[in-house]
Amino acid sequence: MSVLVVGSVAIDTVETPFGRAEQSIGGAALYFSVAASFFTKVRMVGVIGHDFPEPTLDDLRRRGIDLAGLERAEGKTFRWTGRYHEDMNVRDTLHLDLGVFGDFHPRLPEAYRDTQFVFLANIDPVLQSSVLDQLAAPGVIGCDSMNYWIQEKRPELEQLLMRVGILVINDEEAKMLSGEKNVVKAARRILEMGPKSVLVKRGEYGVIQFSGNSVFAVPAFPLEEVFDPTGAGDTFAGGFMGQIARSRDTSEGGIRKAIVYGSVMASFVVEDFSYRRLERLTADEIEQRYRQFVSLTNIEGI
Amino acid sequence: MSVLVVGSVAIDTVETPFGRAEQSIGGAALYFSVAASFFTKVRMVGVIGHDFPEPTLDDLRRRGIDLAGLERAEGKTFRWTGRYHEDMNVRDTLHLDLGVFGDFHPRLPEAYRDTQFVFLANIDPVLQSSVLDQLAAPGVIGCDSMNYWIQEKRPELEQLLMRVGILVINDEEAKMLSGEKNVVKAARRILEMGPKSVLVKRGEYGVIQFSGNSVFAVPAFPLEEVFDPTGAGDTFAGGFMGQIARSRDTSEGGIRKAIVYGSVMASFVVEDFSYRRLERLTADEIEQRYRQFVSLTNIEGI
Repeated sequence: MSVLVVGSVAIDTVETPFGRAEQSIGGAALYFSVAASFFTKVRMVGVIGHDFPEPTLDDLRRRGIDLAGLERAEGKTFRWTGRYHEDMNVRDTLHLDLGVFGDFHPRLPEAYRDTQFVFLANIDPVLQSSVLDQLAAPGVIGCDSMNYWIQEKRPELEQLLMRVGILVINDEEAKMLSGEKNVVKAARRILEMGPKSVLVKRGEYGVIQFSGNSVFAVPAFPLEEVFDPTGAGDTFAGGFMGQIARSRDTSEGGIRKAIVYGSVMASFVVEDFSYRRLERLTADEIEQRYRQFVSLTNIEGI
Repeated sequence: MSVLVVGSVAIDTVETPFGRAEQSIGGAALYFSVAASFFTKVRMVGVIGHDFPEPTLDDLRRRGIDLAGLERAEGKTFRWTGRYHEDMNVRDTLHLDLGVFGDFHPRLPEAYRDTQFVFLANIDPVLQSSVLDQLAAPGVIGCDSMNYWIQEKRPELEQLLMRVGILVINDEEAKMLSGEKNVVKAARRILEMGPKSVLVKRGEYGVIQFSGNSVFAVPAFPLEEVFDPTGAGDTFAGGFMGQIARSRDTSEGGIRKAIVYGSVMASFVVEDFSYRRLERLTADEIEQRYRQFVSLTNIEGI
């Protein structure tokens, strides 16, 4: 089954302690789509400007990513320039130009309306809701957000959350959204706001998932070098939703497996700038690292 | 098989956002011993002053903790007063009085010389080595340390590490000891210094263990409230070494199980001040939480 994603598509310039990559392709919807494309067909909803490279679009299409929902508008593509510190958990935004993304109003092609698996990457919750309004009867709805929307558009976000099944959010955002300092309490509070499942991303410490009667925690894959953390969270979401759409399994076991596939994809994407590592990634490598995750976490020690 | 521990025994005053406990019994050897006593007999090596309460000693003996190696010296017991911040990962030491611990020179009773399972809690590496010198042929040697010794007594610590099988250390200390910022590289470097296994404690994110050809990561148990984190690391070590001594299993699977038992014990001790939670803990509760850990980490979702 196809998975639909709506979110940013960007041209990034990123500096890490390992080097600098100019004009790399980025954005939440981009990372999500490339990761999900290893699992299922993808429908992308977003906006780019006249400056977005045509060869990248060809590449995305070759990956089975449907770009009918990717609007090309007059103006420049969203651009972000960031610099990571020696401690790569900290980054500064050096430059930000929303470009055509500033006026983005997602319009879904008619052919997208039947999509069952949907991921609302981090954009204005009003726009996220408008995407749901354009869908006939979405089955599984995943959603991300960020501190800015939690502070500036809380009522709109809370309305949206009542329609969302799976919230994918980071540690700090979960605490801000819930007003709780403890992650367990934060997740319990968020579960009362609508979602059936909350996935809390904890960066180098992995992911912890809360649902009605279950908690699941998986570490991040221990890497000797994190080259560029940009897009790790969106790549996680892409692997996660891609696997959910591929398996159509939303049981607790199905969600857990999907969380591991998401973690696998995230562990690859940070090994190089932009999504370069995914460009040369194989299905075998994904399965191999999935088995490494099983071994990493198995108490009996296989 | 008995497990021997050498380390501090203290009288603590602790303030957390949840309250204040005056003159609680603490110290690394104390937390370790009480935790390990749920798994096996314990031999404690340490020093207390004239002010240490006799009823506590009776209680420890009732738990199967052999106190022949606990010297009572002229003077006052080591005293520590600390205050935890709202973020309980941060604490201030308000008062510290080494008392009789300042002149501590571990002397092992003759009956301890045959001990096979040994844990050197965080004290001067010279004293840790002197304990090993007094043992006939220890089989499994675990060890902790801290930033102070890494900075002030590096050569002595490095000499000790060549004799240590399992190093139990926290994230920051592993990085300081190895000179590496990445935890995987740090652990690999430490494995070259002697230990066969390195357990890196990551507080609320759990433990990650590195050995020659294996990595194992387990999250901390997700608790809604951490009441008092004092002694969590030492309690972890006590559960870990206690299980190793009970099972005599140092295979990768045996070490992984022991790490989970250590995590179980740590998850209980933080639920109340001092080791009060362990005073009312049952073997059934330990097994039940062990099973919860299995479920928490199981990818297939049992």
